[in-house]
Amino acid sequence: MASRVRATNTEMVSPAVGLEARLRVLEQKVASLEPRVPQDRVSLMVFSWELDRILAAFAIATGAAALGYQTSMFFMFWGLAGLRQKRVVTGKRVREGLVALLAPGNSKQLPMSRMNFFGVGARMLRGMMRDKHVASLEDLMRIARRLGTRMVACETSRDVMGIRDDELVEGLEFGATAGFLADALHSRVTLFI
Amino acid sequence: MASRVRATNTEMVSPAVGLEARLRVLEQKVASLEPRVPQDRVSLMVFSWELDRILAAFAIATGAAALGYQTSMFFMFWGLAGLRQKRVVTGKRVREGLVALLAPGNSKQLPMSRMNFFGVGARMLRGMMRDKHVASLEDLMRIARRLGTRMVACETSRDVMGIRDDELVEGLEFGATAGFLADALHSRVTLFI
Amino acid sequence: MASRVRATNTEMVSPAVGLEARLRVLEQKVASLEPRVPQDRVSLMVFSWELDRILAAFAIATGAAALGYQTSMFFMFWGLAGLRQKRVVTGKRVREGLVALLAPGNSKQLPMSRMNFFGVGARMLRGMMRDKHVASLEDLMRIARRLGTRMVACETSRDVMGIRDDELVEGLEFGATAGFLADALHSRVTLFI
Repeated sequence: MASRVRATNTEMVSPAVGLEARLRVLEQKVASLEPRVPQDRVSLMVFSWELDRILAAFAIATGAAALGYQTSMFFMFWGLAGLRQKRVVTGKRVREGLVALLAPGNSKQLPMSRMNFFGVGARMLRGMMRDKHVASLEDLMRIARRLGTRMVACETSRDVMGIRDDELVEGLEFGATAGFLADALHSRVTLFI
Repeated sequence: MASRVRATNTEMVSPAVGLEARLRVLEQKVASLEPRVPQDRVSLMVFSWELDRILAAFAIATGAAALGYQTSMFFMFWGLAGLRQKRVVTGKRVREGLVALLAPGNSKQLPMSRMNFFGVGARMLRGMMRDKHVASLEDLMRIARRLGTRMVACETSRDVMGIRDDELVEGLEFGATAGFLADALHSRVTLFI
Repeated sequence: MASRVRATNTEMVSPAVGLEARLRVLEQKVASLEPRVPQDRVSLMVFSWELDRILAAFAIATGAAALGYQTSMFFMFWGLAGLRQKRVVTGKRVREGLVALLAPGNSKQLPMSRMNFFGVGARMLRGMMRDKHVASLEDLMRIARRLGTRMVACETSRDVMGIRDDELVEGLEFGATAGFLADALHSRVTLFI
């Protein structure tokens, strides 16, 4: 009771004191919310090497980048193994060479996730996209780079599979899962593809 | 040093002036955070046509919609190709007709993503769900519609695969990837299924 | 017009009244934003039972937990069916027993999502990870538990597939899709794996 009377007195003497206290509380609350409010970023974890799924990933990534969002794609496991410009087999351990042999040698060799029929499905999809004048995967990759999309290769995946850096497409950064999280934790959209 | 003295003087003369400046800063900060704070929305990108995955998508979507979240499902590629009520083959280009022939003709024909065994797996799952009185896919689709879940068909996927609008289930909107992003960027949960 | 004059008068008499009104508006705005600002959480929906995908899920989960984020993994359908420590077939309905027979009996039996070659692929991956001293799935599961990662089993999946609790690995909670959503709606990262 006593304290309530005192508070009332203070406010009568100087209303600004009560306001200052409320303002301070609000400033602290906003300061605590701020780091958890997403930034204008989009983060994609690309785990797949299939043409259809990679196309979806780049369609979303270029769309977000075109809207002005800082977009990053993290390529893990099959996602990284499929991101080659060439295939190196010699000079590797047996299992690593086998992975290189079995993985798609470049983007033109990516299979479909369904209805692949030994590559016929992927060729069919590319033909249908051409017929409708839809940007090809290679177009989308170029657009993504031009729009500043970050393409990050998972270091652990690279090391485990023994992929050499010169096997991979140009313009990749290298990073760990913690790097993906550092982006994703501040992103407005996060997808595992 | 001089400016600090002046500031102190000002506050002594009128404490409200200092408060007003702080309040203005805070108002601007909140105004800049506001558009990045997620709204009460959930956005699902449905890329798959398998019964098990579509069931997961609709279970999450109806759950979110029942909790009062504005829920949208964006059906891309296989996700769209599997959302048929009938199958039209004639009058299409060869490749488009082939896609229609190979795609599930309606929701009852959706395969499993694993253990399909030429459809036996999907029938088994439906039987096990019936045994335990769990809502079927068709039930969930009806519930989703009743709860106002937006179901958006990817226009590019439709055009590339040559799917006719009357082949698809009722109640779909049509939109581009940018439309998915417009929802997803303001959503509290975003998933690629 | 009259009200504007009055407002101006009030501000002249006491500037604090105008500030108080603005402060109140801002307090209400922040209060309405607060519940929608993500908390320091990460939520993964694990739908898959393949070694490579489960490894990705636990790599992300342990990474997030190590950074101090409250991390939860929700195991649905195949994700749950693969989370066994043993396999019980007898005393079940025919279809339930069949699921148990066909599902991996424990984490060592998880297949690959691609290039499985009847289990050779999975053994190869485990060997390559050992060669590079990368934590195994079993290591990651132990780390996840030690870091307090919540592992939630989907009750509907368990009931539909007739999985007995003692078939599943230790330390699982049980929950419904609404439980996943309750976490995911407050998470900074949400992924469907």
